[in-house]
Amino acid sequence: MLSADLYSFVTRVRGHAPLVHCLTNLVVTNFTANVLLAIGAAPAMVVAREEVGEFAPIAGALSVNLGTLDVPQSRAIRAAVDAANGAGKPWVLDPVAVGPLTFRTEFALELLDLTPAVIRGNASEIISLSGGAASGRGVDSTAATDAALDAAQILALRTQAVVAVTGATDYITDGRQVVALSNGSPLMTRVTGVGCALSATVAAFIATATSRDEHFAATVAAIACTTIAGELAARDAALPGSFAVAYLDRLASLDENAFGQTLVMRDVALS
Amino acid sequence: MLSADLYSFVTRVRGHAPLVHCLTNLVVTNFTANVLLAIGAAPAMVVAREEVGEFAPIAGALSVNLGTLDVPQSRAIRAAVDAANGAGKPWVLDPVAVGPLTFRTEFALELLDLTPAVIRGNASEIISLSGGAASGRGVDSTAATDAALDAAQILALRTQAVVAVTGATDYITDGRQVVALSNGSPLMTRVTGVGCALSATVAAFIATATSRDEHFAATVAAIACTTIAGELAARDAALPGSFAVAYLDRLASLDENAFGQTLVMRDVALS
Amino acid sequence: MLSADLYSFVTRVRGHAPLVHCLTNLVVTNFTANVLLAIGAAPAMVVAREEVGEFAPIAGALSVNLGTLDVPQSRAIRAAVDAANGAGKPWVLDPVAVGPLTFRTEFALELLDLTPAVIRGNASEIISLSGGAASGRGVDSTAATDAALDAAQILALRTQAVVAVTGATDYITDGRQVVALSNGSPLMTRVTGVGCALSATVAAFIATATSRDEHFAATVAAIACTTIAGELAARDAALPGSFAVAYLDRLASLDENAFGQTLVMRDVALS
Repeated sequence: MLSADLYSFVTRVRGHAPLVHCLTNLVVTNFTANVLLAIGAAPAMVVAREEVGEFAPIAGALSVNLGTLDVPQSRAIRAAVDAANGAGKPWVLDPVAVGPLTFRTEFALELLDLTPAVIRGNASEIISLSGGAASGRGVDSTAATDAALDAAQILALRTQAVVAVTGATDYITDGRQVVALSNGSPLMTRVTGVGCALSATVAAFIATATSRDEHFAATVAAIACTTIAGELAARDAALPGSFAVAYLDRLASLDENAFGQTLVMRDVALS
Repeated sequence: MLSADLYSFVTRVRGHAPLVHCLTNLVVTNFTANVLLAIGAAPAMVVAREEVGEFAPIAGALSVNLGTLDVPQSRAIRAAVDAANGAGKPWVLDPVAVGPLTFRTEFALELLDLTPAVIRGNASEIISLSGGAASGRGVDSTAATDAALDAAQILALRTQAVVAVTGATDYITDGRQVVALSNGSPLMTRVTGVGCALSATVAAFIATATSRDEHFAATVAAIACTTIAGELAARDAALPGSFAVAYLDRLASLDENAFGQTLVMRDVALS
Repeated sequence: MLSADLYSFVTRVRGHAPLVHCLTNLVVTNFTANVLLAIGAAPAMVVAREEVGEFAPIAGALSVNLGTLDVPQSRAIRAAVDAANGAGKPWVLDPVAVGPLTFRTEFALELLDLTPAVIRGNASEIISLSGGAASGRGVDSTAATDAALDAAQILALRTQAVVAVTGATDYITDGRQVVALSNGSPLMTRVTGVGCALSATVAAFIATATSRDEHFAATVAAIACTTIAGELAARDAALPGSFAVAYLDRLASLDENAFGQTLVMRDVALS
């Protein structure tokens, strides 16, 4: 994959301003919307079961995040996913804290059968979804991302989704190929919602894909865009409050030159 | 209307610190509260149907925003509006994304009968509320604000509310007079919740009105204060993360001199 | 109490990264999570009644905030408190706006019987909880903190909790001893959620206590850390938007030297 091909998704998002329907958690709604606006997409957070079906054909993609799942939201998510599938719109699953918590884990496993285009999680979450016994303690991953690579491949082959395991190194696989990205900054873990907003960014990027074949490249591009903006923002600010501000600024101002010069990507041989 | 008369509402809000009860969407609660604090008002986000009635007499005004409406919130809103009306407190309606979504559109039409003091929306929303066929795609307006001016006038005459259509140019009408404001910055659309928080700001300003006759001027003042702060903040910051910070700072530090020198206001002849 | 002993809790939180389960209000979820990350703790906002019980043994402490209480959340809070007590994890009660609102006041009074480790509120809230007639108008306290000192002592003796009344001067008591802290800045009241996030910070600090005997010192340390960071941030920024950013930065960068040099603490004789 070439840097210029990845960057073309950044340009597409800015040009098309895809409307991203987010059913996300209560902690990150605002930050997610601001990240989507910073990259040039348009956020929409319609939440009611009564409305999500009607909204799916209007939106370009759907992003589902289980961070503060409860029963009413699980019903809205099911309706939204059905409507997205019915309207031919791709959707992203962010299985926050799946593993130690039974309710969301069972719900996430149900969702796996509803053809997500992309699944993005940390190592613990991806290991749990693939059937392994992970050691997460909620939102934190206690497993390194490389330990989750096998799990990601299994999950991708089973679901036909692109699977992304994000952490210090990010792995993206469709079950046949794997790309590793090594950009970012530890400061990204000191601001709540960076990972959750990344899932919405992935949704914005795949909304601009011309076919399912582009979902893999779009996901790599979204993660590269996010982690490069984070890495550049860490040059502007060393502490989390000002880093969060710089991060949004860097997302909005990212250009092809900085993208290409900062990107650290390699192909990984599958086992 | 004189600049000094408009600015007097800024002074009143800072002096009285009106308590603004907000029933708003999940994306903008935090930003709305911070905007209200920046202008010198006091936010209160009591949400439960069990409590909104008891809270109405304590609050100075109520701000209702339909951005993430669901059934429980619709019940709380109805109870809060009834209580505000019962207690003689003015309330503001922000009909987010009304038009393409049936559930909220029907609910917004019901609310029109409950004597809102002010209705603030984008062009698509105001056209929809007045019975026209708008072309919104949710939170974004795809219609220019001037196209909504007729709709705003119709809506104002029918509801006896002040109606504000905000966009690049803002129009405020009570059905008999129209004022156009042309301040602001495109960056205001790159930060989520600026429009939603403006509705709460309108509520804070009308809370200081001595009679219903002042609602028109108070609404113009609230929108002028908001767009002037945005225009000044865009001189401080060119990217959305730092703009949001500068915007809150400019709201808090706005003075009469800068207000008067920046204000671009004109009367519009009604058709 | 020595400054070095208080600061040792800051070091412990950074070393252990305690997982703090927050059931808090819709306005401050994001800011609370960012404050917890800034001090080195790990936020977790599991909200569903179905999950809170399972989560209690994983978390280090629980923080309960009644700011936007509704019936579903009251059920989740009851389940979470029972589970925390069952798992031997301490919990903090933040009785936002208790007094004028019946639903939350009755609920807060119920919670008093469930052995909170710490109760943190403003003067009006603490007076209301102790059975007095306070004059709050919701989230704002209209009573000075010293007027609440008697009420705090009564409440501490009755509940066996540490009680903190925060305001321009903060009082912390376990019913037998009282410490007064006089750090901070008026800007802390211009950013929404500083007080609510402080309650979560107290939860993070008591999560590192080796026994219940340390809860008093941990609470003093959490409030000192918060108000000192606020006081230092006010040297960096004079307006609320930039102050909020500086506040998070100061929380993250607070060192023992600045802590010791800034701390203004005194013992208060109990009546």
